[in-house]
Amino acid sequence: MPVAVRRSVIALSDDRELIYFDDLEAPKRNGIDARGLEPGSTEQGSMRFDALAGEWVAVAGHRQTRIFLPSASDCPICPTRDGWLSEIPEPNFNVVVFENRFPSFLTGSDWVATDGFPDLGTQIPAHGRCEVVAFTDNHVGSLATLNTNQMSLVMSAWIDRTRELCERDGIRYVFVFENRGAEIGVTLHHPHGQIYAYPYLPATMSTQLRQSAQYFDTHGQQLLEAMLAFELTSGDRIVYQDEHWVAFVPFAARWPYEIQIHPKVARTSLMELTDAEQDAFCASYPRLIRALDSIFGVPLPYMSGWHQLPAQATQEERRDSRLFLKLISNRRAADKLKFLAGSESLMGSFINDVAAEQSARRIREAFEATA
Amino acid sequence: MPVAVRRSVIALSDDRELIYFDDLEAPKRNGIDARGLEPGSTEQGSMRFDALAGEWVAVAGHRQTRIFLPSASDCPICPTRDGWLSEIPEPNFNVVVFENRFPSFLTGSDWVATDGFPDLGTQIPAHGRCEVVAFTDNHVGSLATLNTNQMSLVMSAWIDRTRELCERDGIRYVFVFENRGAEIGVTLHHPHGQIYAYPYLPATMSTQLRQSAQYFDTHGQQLLEAMLAFELTSGDRIVYQDEHWVAFVPFAARWPYEIQIHPKVARTSLMELTDAEQDAFCASYPRLIRALDSIFGVPLPYMSGWHQLPAQATQEERRDSRLFLKLISNRRAADKLKFLAGSESLMGSFINDVAAEQSARRIREAFEATA
Repeated sequence: MPVAVRRSVIALSDDRELIYFDDLEAPKRNGIDARGLEPGSTEQGSMRFDALAGEWVAVAGHRQTRIFLPSASDCPICPTRDGWLSEIPEPNFNVVVFENRFPSFLTGSDWVATDGFPDLGTQIPAHGRCEVVAFTDNHVGSLATLNTNQMSLVMSAWIDRTRELCERDGIRYVFVFENRGAEIGVTLHHPHGQIYAYPYLPATMSTQLRQSAQYFDTHGQQLLEAMLAFELTSGDRIVYQDEHWVAFVPFAARWPYEIQIHPKVARTSLMELTDAEQDAFCASYPRLIRALDSIFGVPLPYMSGWHQLPAQATQEERRDSRLFLKLISNRRAADKLKFLAGSESLMGSFINDVAAEQSARRIREAFEATA
Repeated sequence: MPVAVRRSVIALSDDRELIYFDDLEAPKRNGIDARGLEPGSTEQGSMRFDALAGEWVAVAGHRQTRIFLPSASDCPICPTRDGWLSEIPEPNFNVVVFENRFPSFLTGSDWVATDGFPDLGTQIPAHGRCEVVAFTDNHVGSLATLNTNQMSLVMSAWIDRTRELCERDGIRYVFVFENRGAEIGVTLHHPHGQIYAYPYLPATMSTQLRQSAQYFDTHGQQLLEAMLAFELTSGDRIVYQDEHWVAFVPFAARWPYEIQIHPKVARTSLMELTDAEQDAFCASYPRLIRALDSIFGVPLPYMSGWHQLPAQATQEERRDSRLFLKLISNRRAADKLKFLAGSESLMGSFINDVAAEQSARRIREAFEATA
């Protein structure tokens, strides 16, 4: 069973929301943010329509000044202690979610992108929400070092945020994700993930849903269902599976390390996961990260995030959506990173130097050798 | 007038093609590749269909062993001299184009991607061609240090390759591009660009043409024509313009430094450029690169490439295509690079920390201060 959760909400001194996700034994959360930040001082950026790509680009000039790789003594995600006033006004915590102080999207209007073609030069406030998910109060470590109970609290936070943010006005997609490693641009070492509530369907989801609809029209089957069946039948790209989940390197992987983790029973969103599915994920996911870290003997830089049902979903989107986690890494050798150069960055055409089966074997062997 | 060109074709010892682009005063090119490479030893990779993205991914395992940042004494793009047998069997050269020894695409079948939905698990040989364009025989320098005559020879090579590769069987798009700087993954310092002849329409072009068709349907106007007119009218993102060309930071730029350079008269491809347009480009482009290099006082890492008419273009594609050069850089401050993290890499949703007008002003001022 997932850990029973006590949820406590406070307001930081600048009015941003902070939510504690604790087990029932944790102390009450009464700490007050003593930094005296100016209420309402969080800046909202804007977003511009890129007509040639058919995508919105967020412009967030205020993010240039964000904190860059602080040590534990001035880490904003560490607890408040030893005279250091952090974002979290408690001397310890389990899991905490709070609004990002330098957000790309901020609640400010209930505008939602439509399918039409906006006029050239369209710029509007970047409505939405950006949250930080602190996985632990320990500055050192990562998801790889979380025990199953702590991982269960993280998962409860993910589910809670998906539910609440999907219900908000003007939100079209809730993206639960993690960037890990300075090699992919992480600016804070403290173990944490993020949540972006976008006011539009991000390009990847938009493309996935378009492909899925096209597949359904010609095959009468959900594309993701067909892909999962294909991977289970092929077998040689599977990394691990248990009663509830299967992890594999997808057939057309474009990164040296790329993994999808699917619940075996179709779920459209994190909100639909059963207790047993949550438990199984919390047992295997930190082990997978430990396995990935063992491959090169140093923590693997990665990005991971959940594909799930959009907010305000249409009937067709419900039909075609299926929950899965995607994890990618840009490390291609112990001393080399994969860069997205001209073919990828300018033309969107990926070249992978590693075949999916080879990468899957390496990860599978590492997983099996990891406790 | 563009420099008059003498074109000389030879075969390297492994049968790869090499083409010299010389002015008429250059010595005859009779040098023979004495390395004794095995004929036909260049490996062809494969490509797999990513059903969820609707894109082909090239898999090129043989590229893992490619040469990594060699010094001048063992640079494959330097001339053959002082006992070093390079790719180019001459003691000097002007501009040279040769088939990449570690190609992502290699001529091997005349298959062309169609618009249909390939079966899950579709993998085929990666047909196409990858070429290296050596801009000069000098190991040190870049396009920024080329004189106008040398730049003119480079441009002649670009035009020649576009023409020849577009006519080849099974080619759908010829992409003329350059990656510069170790910060974006360049593995060879010698000043050079690349040409990829893809057997499919790369994702960026596919999206651009879809957007353009949609715009034409609703507005009865070419999207790129409308965007150029919009930028000329706005004016505050223009970097420079002369009689034939205009360079600007596009309204919805997604990179800290991002520039488009358009001929003022509509051209669909490099092949259509007049002599006067070529001359004007060759005079201003190296100056733009020098200006970009002056911003941080060190060479700016960048990727640049030409958007042009696809090969085997449909009538609609002809109507909607318009030649322009796109240049992007991932440097966001003297000591910081922009990384594509979770929002960009997983969801395709870009956050730019710099507004286009601010970036344009900085580049414009640098351009005006540069000789």
